[in-house]
Amino acid sequence: MDRPADLTDPLVRRRAELVKWARDPVDVLPAWVAEHDFRPPEAVFAAVHRVADEGAFGYTRRAAALGPAYASWARRRHAWEVDPELVTWHVDVLQGVVAAVTALSEPGEGLVITPPIYFPFLDIAPTTGRRQLEWRLRRDDTGWHLDPDDLDAVLSREPDARVLLLSHPHNPTGRVLDPAALARIVEICARHDVHIVSDEIHGDLVRPDVEFRPLLTVPGAAERTVVVTSAAKTFSLSGLRCAVSVFADPDLRSRVLHAHPPLLLGHPGRVGIEATIAAWEHGADWTDGLVELIGRRFDRLAERLAAEAPAVRWHRPEATFLAWLDVSACGLGPRPGATLLERARVAVSEGVDFGEGGEGHIRVNVGTAEAVFEEICDRLLPHLGVAAGGGA
Amino acid sequence: MDRPADLTDPLVRRRAELVKWARDPVDVLPAWVAEHDFRPPEAVFAAVHRVADEGAFGYTRRAAALGPAYASWARRRHAWEVDPELVTWHVDVLQGVVAAVTALSEPGEGLVITPPIYFPFLDIAPTTGRRQLEWRLRRDDTGWHLDPDDLDAVLSREPDARVLLLSHPHNPTGRVLDPAALARIVEICARHDVHIVSDEIHGDLVRPDVEFRPLLTVPGAAERTVVVTSAAKTFSLSGLRCAVSVFADPDLRSRVLHAHPPLLLGHPGRVGIEATIAAWEHGADWTDGLVELIGRRFDRLAERLAAEAPAVRWHRPEATFLAWLDVSACGLGPRPGATLLERARVAVSEGVDFGEGGEGHIRVNVGTAEAVFEEICDRLLPHLGVAAGGGA
Repeated sequence: MDRPADLTDPLVRRRAELVKWARDPVDVLPAWVAEHDFRPPEAVFAAVHRVADEGAFGYTRRAAALGPAYASWARRRHAWEVDPELVTWHVDVLQGVVAAVTALSEPGEGLVITPPIYFPFLDIAPTTGRRQLEWRLRRDDTGWHLDPDDLDAVLSREPDARVLLLSHPHNPTGRVLDPAALARIVEICARHDVHIVSDEIHGDLVRPDVEFRPLLTVPGAAERTVVVTSAAKTFSLSGLRCAVSVFADPDLRSRVLHAHPPLLLGHPGRVGIEATIAAWEHGADWTDGLVELIGRRFDRLAERLAAEAPAVRWHRPEATFLAWLDVSACGLGPRPGATLLERARVAVSEGVDFGEGGEGHIRVNVGTAEAVFEEICDRLLPHLGVAAGGGA
Repeated sequence: MDRPADLTDPLVRRRAELVKWARDPVDVLPAWVAEHDFRPPEAVFAAVHRVADEGAFGYTRRAAALGPAYASWARRRHAWEVDPELVTWHVDVLQGVVAAVTALSEPGEGLVITPPIYFPFLDIAPTTGRRQLEWRLRRDDTGWHLDPDDLDAVLSREPDARVLLLSHPHNPTGRVLDPAALARIVEICARHDVHIVSDEIHGDLVRPDVEFRPLLTVPGAAERTVVVTSAAKTFSLSGLRCAVSVFADPDLRSRVLHAHPPLLLGHPGRVGIEATIAAWEHGADWTDGLVELIGRRFDRLAERLAAEAPAVRWHRPEATFLAWLDVSACGLGPRPGATLLERARVAVSEGVDFGEGGEGHIRVNVGTAEAVFEEICDRLLPHLGVAAGGGA
């Protein structure tokens, strides 16, 4: 069975000019960008080699096969019936997200995002002339969560809000909205005439004990929802550039598709298309293996944090391979990520870059080989004790 | 020395789902889309295999190497000094063209194109809300040509014209604007405050006896000109999706770069980037070989047309691998391409699809293996005699 190889050769990754490994000096270990280090399924390698072997570099219409490939994946992994004819393609998820947001709102109208949030979402309103509105996560003893009543309040206060942009599962907190919350979100958005753009790129990487429902499986969502997703996160294919938007309403698809000059958005390349199709057709067992492997990393992180750095507050994520750690008790200053880069030689993502709610946090990528992960912990944890007064 | 292999295996091309070979029934020979069939340089294959071998599928910043790679190519092939810092990248040339046109004009303002013209250019004004203006080519006994006085007349008559979009060398006629004409175009555009977007994707494939000057080498062009180009045409890499825009004025570059939400335009994929860099770094001798080979095809086409189909009017192109044939005397009806597909089982491009001036014409791609080319001629020429009355 094809399982993710638990190995990472930093020198190979650096030589391959992968930015995760090549950005920083050679003595720094990377735990920042949301990309794991596991070897993709052999079918993906075979697909890329086949393009090279055949010299299949010319014009093609293979993008049309993305719809059926995604529909098959969605049926098997999410018990979700997607109409392949209602799938469109993009160069990457952010292109799909921005195309939908700008299709479904006018300049000056409101875009709701959910901070602390995947930081490129903070650029969308400023660079598209939309007004940024915030439905902020709350934190209690059970972890971070989105309260639909807060969304209702935001939309009641801001009648020009037109689009809710979700990160589902939520990056950086790893939170998965449950079916009841999803149903309320759809109901609230319907009442306020707001469309939903749901970035579900982390949707394959959900803990087995947590239920993940694609937003388009929620009754009533079809007429107002675009799901944007990609094989890039699950299979670490971000550099190959291929993503899809999924619709359940032909009119909504048409509205988004025709909102921009089609030639302006370009087209995914052959290798991104073939790698994506191969991953969706042959990557199911491999993905099960990856989810297990991520689970083992979080088991170990929980164990080590409890033993070596109890001052760190965190909640085990329900999805993906990113740990969102509150290190505000650790005396690392206003930019703890920068402090840790300097002191521990580990590159993590800086919490404040994720907007409101990110203060005192870091995001740590655990999607790497066991030895690298242990070394990351060995380096970070001595700096995550309680500031000024021992403990830990 | 690395030379283009003069061979084409139709079954391999069809199996590889290259649209040129796969679109039509198996008994049809393709001479339509502007893509040649020659095997790219070995360095391109090596670059693609290397991405696969290294599993270099993740996030990268290798696009930044496109500027230096193109600058080196421009210096060696066109004696053109490009500042690598003023190069930006796109998914394909049409994305770069549409991004520049929409950055440099407002909806309702005029876009000048040059029919008969590469047909996607006919979609740009309608899909971007610009007003389409036409600077039409004229035909005389020496061939098709653009008269700068006509441009001056169009711009004098249409004060809201803001962008001139050139296809340089010109597709479909294969005409190359000479230095005197280029100087006049720049002078006229300066006088009328019009920007120039110059699609130079065919610029490497110019006959050795013809002088090709990139528009940005013309004095005075820098402040108003964007050159958009790619390795995709020279090396048949269109499916891999990578292109560049070249500027000589930092302010103009900034204006175009910031005119659209950056996330909306996406990013070229790793394989397109690496194949492009390899082609520009190692493809010079190969390109010389390709230009020679195209020359031999046109020698043979001239010979066979003169002997077997003298009713066809044409002028040997100064660039690229496309023959623009006036078959209006051949009695093939209003869509001679469709008639020839049916009667000769050869797919050519339909002249009327190129707009005004395309009536009675077909565009025939000669960029293929010798045996395929001869078979294309064998099939086409019997249908290109004089209609109703023998001859030929």
